[in-house]
Amino acid sequence: MADDRAERIAEFIRPLRVEPGTEVRLPGDFDPGYKAGIRKKEDGVELLSKGIELLADYQRRLAAQDTYGVLVCLQALDAGGKDGTIRHVMSGINPQGVNVYGFKVPSAEELDHDYLWRYACRLPRRGEIGIFNRSHYEEVLVVRVHPEHLERQRLPEEARGPDVWARRYREINDWERYLHDNGFRIVKLFLNLSKEEQRRRFLKRIDVPERNWKFSAADVRERRRWDDYQQAFSQMLSATSTDWAPWYVIPADHKWFARLCAASVLADTLIDLDPQYPHVSEAARRELAAAKRELEREAPEGMQKPDKAEDGGN
Amino acid sequence: MADDRAERIAEFIRPLRVEPGTEVRLPGDFDPGYKAGIRKKEDGVELLSKGIELLADYQRRLAAQDTYGVLVCLQALDAGGKDGTIRHVMSGINPQGVNVYGFKVPSAEELDHDYLWRYACRLPRRGEIGIFNRSHYEEVLVVRVHPEHLERQRLPEEARGPDVWARRYREINDWERYLHDNGFRIVKLFLNLSKEEQRRRFLKRIDVPERNWKFSAADVRERRRWDDYQQAFSQMLSATSTDWAPWYVIPADHKWFARLCAASVLADTLIDLDPQYPHVSEAARRELAAAKRELEREAPEGMQKPDKAEDGGN
Repeated sequence: MADDRAERIAEFIRPLRVEPGTEVRLPGDFDPGYKAGIRKKEDGVELLSKGIELLADYQRRLAAQDTYGVLVCLQALDAGGKDGTIRHVMSGINPQGVNVYGFKVPSAEELDHDYLWRYACRLPRRGEIGIFNRSHYEEVLVVRVHPEHLERQRLPEEARGPDVWARRYREINDWERYLHDNGFRIVKLFLNLSKEEQRRRFLKRIDVPERNWKFSAADVRERRRWDDYQQAFSQMLSATSTDWAPWYVIPADHKWFARLCAASVLADTLIDLDPQYPHVSEAARRELAAAKRELEREAPEGMQKPDKAEDGGN
Repeated sequence: MADDRAERIAEFIRPLRVEPGTEVRLPGDFDPGYKAGIRKKEDGVELLSKGIELLADYQRRLAAQDTYGVLVCLQALDAGGKDGTIRHVMSGINPQGVNVYGFKVPSAEELDHDYLWRYACRLPRRGEIGIFNRSHYEEVLVVRVHPEHLERQRLPEEARGPDVWARRYREINDWERYLHDNGFRIVKLFLNLSKEEQRRRFLKRIDVPERNWKFSAADVRERRRWDDYQQAFSQMLSATSTDWAPWYVIPADHKWFARLCAASVLADTLIDLDPQYPHVSEAARRELAAAKRELEREAPEGMQKPDKAEDGGN
């Protein structure tokens, strides 16, 4: 790919990146309404469609090479646009190479295991792009804001102390480093919505009948904890943005811009991996040629041998 | 349980423990023929049967408490006695609370994931004793002695360098620390067989028709790599015996003694955990009493009400 395009993507996503070791404070440190100077939605949509073509090409090479895997972790507050981002960014990519897993309320079996277990079991394979719609970061977000979830995890006393969150940050960082060092890239996207935009989206879900199903009374209850969530997100971003798996804060008040950003971060990761179609050795090339000769000698079914037939079939 | 019994078990297994931070050299550092001064096999078998009763009691409490889980990792050279140890130590314990998983040659799907994936997916739940017959330690044993296995893992170039084993030791230690800190105890047993005893057991497998199925020509091929395995085991024991998950080297030349040792290490872990039946609250006790009254008021099926019947049924 042209180097200037790679450079432009890298520059475009740089302001979204949480530099490892920096302290993030939300709201304030990242503007949910940021648009990188793109004035018209149409321009953004046009850029996104080009980005998706690029992603589709890289995904084919990723699958063919079968050496690296990519895990995309999507986190957001309610109405942050996770589902729409997945739909718009990943449509157009061969679904055989993409696996989306949405994590809901954990089952009794899941609660009976270590807290990373259900995420570890759903990790992508090599050659695959796995998308976690909500991820292991729920374990330091909703579980932190609602300690009753921690109670349900049946942890021994000593694993619930006040250091539980610092410990989980370290455990998650260790786990992601292990995955990175073994050939898995982790793309972490936080869709950063403003409180006012969330209000507007909730009202729309209530007012438009076809959107009612997307709204539940619990959403408003969670909204009351807005400040607690902002703090939990801030600490998560500060503690778990690492050199091997940095966080990107995606401005989410404009859906079209959020999608463009998500596609760009994923593209940047794939460009950096630069997966290649497997090299065909000289011996394998000779085998291909021999196979071709054999196939050509064979008569098409129901036909005479090609050297006697007048044409080789359609 | 009587404190002196716990103390005796702790003392019995102390010589088997690899102290974290020490360098192990096999053979030599641990005697495969060690018997702790127990002269007669019958005495050992008698001790084992008492140990199994103890284990069965602790397992019931572990399951009822449903807070801690236990993972037993069994490693050995061929004919080291893994299967027999599992059969003799774990029979007599409620199989509902015990899960044995034998790891064989990895599947294509398993090879396509990170190397710890297939082990992580089979971890025990809380309240359960999970037994790995061969474990994630194969990844630094057979994979180390036979680098062609590493080739099949489709790792990216940078993950295959000469530091791969040191990195894997660290990754395994991190993972086990995470599990320990979240309520899982890891019992690591290496059945340490002498080269001469392996020869005898192989010959028996060849000479006794009912044992033929246990022998394969590959076993003799692996035996030729004896020194390489001794070195791989030595380095593994040195690098991965930790405060949170120490290794025990089980003298394996006498099967009855190996089983006694394995049961003792597991018992020591459970004694240390000291799982308790859940405490029944005053409110729950009142509910039990109410339920009992209701059940007693109810007439046994096909009978009159107890206050009118002459007896309450059998």
